[in-house]
Amino acid sequence: MRQAGRYMPEYRKLRERYDILEMIKTPELACEVTLQPMNAFDLDAAIIFADILTALEAMGLQLSFEKGEGPVIHNPVRSLADVERLGTPAPEEALGFTLQAIRLARRELDSRGLPLIGFSGGPYTLACYAIEGGSSKTHRRVKQMMMSAPEIWHALMTRLSEVSGEYLLAQARAGAQALQVFDSWAGELNVDDYRRYVLPYSQRTIEIAKTGGVPLIHFAVNNSHLLEAMRVAGGDVLGVDWRINLDTAWNRIGNQWAVQGNLDPVALFCDWETLEQRTRDVLMQADGRIGHIFNLGHGILPETPVDNVRRLVELVHETTSSVVRSPSSETTENG
Amino acid sequence: MRQAGRYMPEYRKLRERYDILEMIKTPELACEVTLQPMNAFDLDAAIIFADILTALEAMGLQLSFEKGEGPVIHNPVRSLADVERLGTPAPEEALGFTLQAIRLARRELDSRGLPLIGFSGGPYTLACYAIEGGSSKTHRRVKQMMMSAPEIWHALMTRLSEVSGEYLLAQARAGAQALQVFDSWAGELNVDDYRRYVLPYSQRTIEIAKTGGVPLIHFAVNNSHLLEAMRVAGGDVLGVDWRINLDTAWNRIGNQWAVQGNLDPVALFCDWETLEQRTRDVLMQADGRIGHIFNLGHGILPETPVDNVRRLVELVHETTSSVVRSPSSETTENG
Repeated sequence: MRQAGRYMPEYRKLRERYDILEMIKTPELACEVTLQPMNAFDLDAAIIFADILTALEAMGLQLSFEKGEGPVIHNPVRSLADVERLGTPAPEEALGFTLQAIRLARRELDSRGLPLIGFSGGPYTLACYAIEGGSSKTHRRVKQMMMSAPEIWHALMTRLSEVSGEYLLAQARAGAQALQVFDSWAGELNVDDYRRYVLPYSQRTIEIAKTGGVPLIHFAVNNSHLLEAMRVAGGDVLGVDWRINLDTAWNRIGNQWAVQGNLDPVALFCDWETLEQRTRDVLMQADGRIGHIFNLGHGILPETPVDNVRRLVELVHETTSSVVRSPSSETTENG
Repeated sequence: MRQAGRYMPEYRKLRERYDILEMIKTPELACEVTLQPMNAFDLDAAIIFADILTALEAMGLQLSFEKGEGPVIHNPVRSLADVERLGTPAPEEALGFTLQAIRLARRELDSRGLPLIGFSGGPYTLACYAIEGGSSKTHRRVKQMMMSAPEIWHALMTRLSEVSGEYLLAQARAGAQALQVFDSWAGELNVDDYRRYVLPYSQRTIEIAKTGGVPLIHFAVNNSHLLEAMRVAGGDVLGVDWRINLDTAWNRIGNQWAVQGNLDPVALFCDWETLEQRTRDVLMQADGRIGHIFNLGHGILPETPVDNVRRLVELVHETTSSVVRSPSSETTENG
């Protein structure tokens, strides 16, 4: 989950001088931002500073981040011709800046014995932005295309799944020791639609990515109705948000799976006693399972008190110290 | 679910002359808007034109609808003193305009043999707006208060549950033949938090409302992880969105419950063949159960093609004509 960001003063300081895309596309800056939370907190793994939308930009969509509005795609995909104009460039050419940032971050992290996670948007989430042209509350255009224009939908999803798969694979080859597929908005869908219109493409993305030989985390917000379907997509770890209890998730998908999650990010705004209790609740549900990756249930919010993040990391380490915990391994990091 | 609205030309025409609160607070206009979809489509029940936020206004919160921004509460609740300043006025005094609109609409609907549904926001959703001061993507302030300031939270929820319960009861007494509790945003919560911080208040709202002696529908968006808990709150019908299949919902809560739902509102933007197939899928899952109220999974979207709404209503009537269907009864309306 997003570690760096506006809640950190050192990040805000950089943002005064650079815009987000500039920071992502300058490997030295992306590496610096990746390391900011590692310097501030005793975390067990880093996640590369990047954005899921640069992959769309690499395919030929014009991307900018508008103040107050978030990401905007200026030439959204609305027709088969739009899909056919999309490129499927080699990640080394079109997204080399993130691969280079991974190489730089690895050098620094290796000396600390800490692993680095790479990531990509999942096919549905990429399709959302590509079709809607930005964030959407209703997913009206993306679902309309999915429901009623299957030939355009499948053409688009085929390209998106290949691009995200190849991008993940390239990140593994550049040095990422684990990968995460953020199909953040897939929880918007009914399970039948997910299985029919998204799952084959998530499978394809994960299939390509897994040839990189590193563990893969598959995450969506609000996915409690999709757990069984998402499991079919493959990968090693299922990421869940705070809506579902971890023990319920494991009961449904089986203990052979690892699960990442799932403290409500809002808990970090509370007094320490409340935050501590809620953290202990999450760990109690995980019940020492080796396949638990402690994390927030979604990205850290702006204005999150930094000191609470620090104390949270310490608490998780203290509480799980009796459990097997190997921060330099890719499969069992806690915290 | 919302029937009237921006998708209808006759509604937009009225909106050119009046703002939303003016329309809600003028019983003749609210009655007229309530009847607009009844005149345009062969619907089996009307829902009164009102807004969940007028109840907050009645309690002393300053409400306005800002262009492009949605509802704004200018003096949101942030402290115990703020809660203690909230009034719990008799609905006849503070919300008499909606009760009068119900009386007017009933006169017209009675002559057509059609029932009228009244509604209120549920306690969590009212708390959201009261605390956040408007719509919120993260629910940061409302959940923070819930998690870490239980004395303020419980004081607020006690008042909100009484006010929404009394408001619903007054609507039943004014002539509403069924009631709906829209706890729209409760799906944002983990099930444990829902049970601890919301359920007792939803129970109280429903307990008061049910003394009116009419059937009650309890709805939340995105509630697939809350079905069993929401059932405990009482009422007669559980409303679900499109994320969960109706047969899955019934399997979990039991066939003795009625279920309302759950066509994805986006389906109305599709070609007729797609819309027809998706409607038949919903009806197939309902499998002729007497306790199915066909509806959208959430409110109808702006720009929805009016002709598709008309054809949808016709299709549901044709398809369910072999099933017991009594449009003038409150418990078995389809469409």
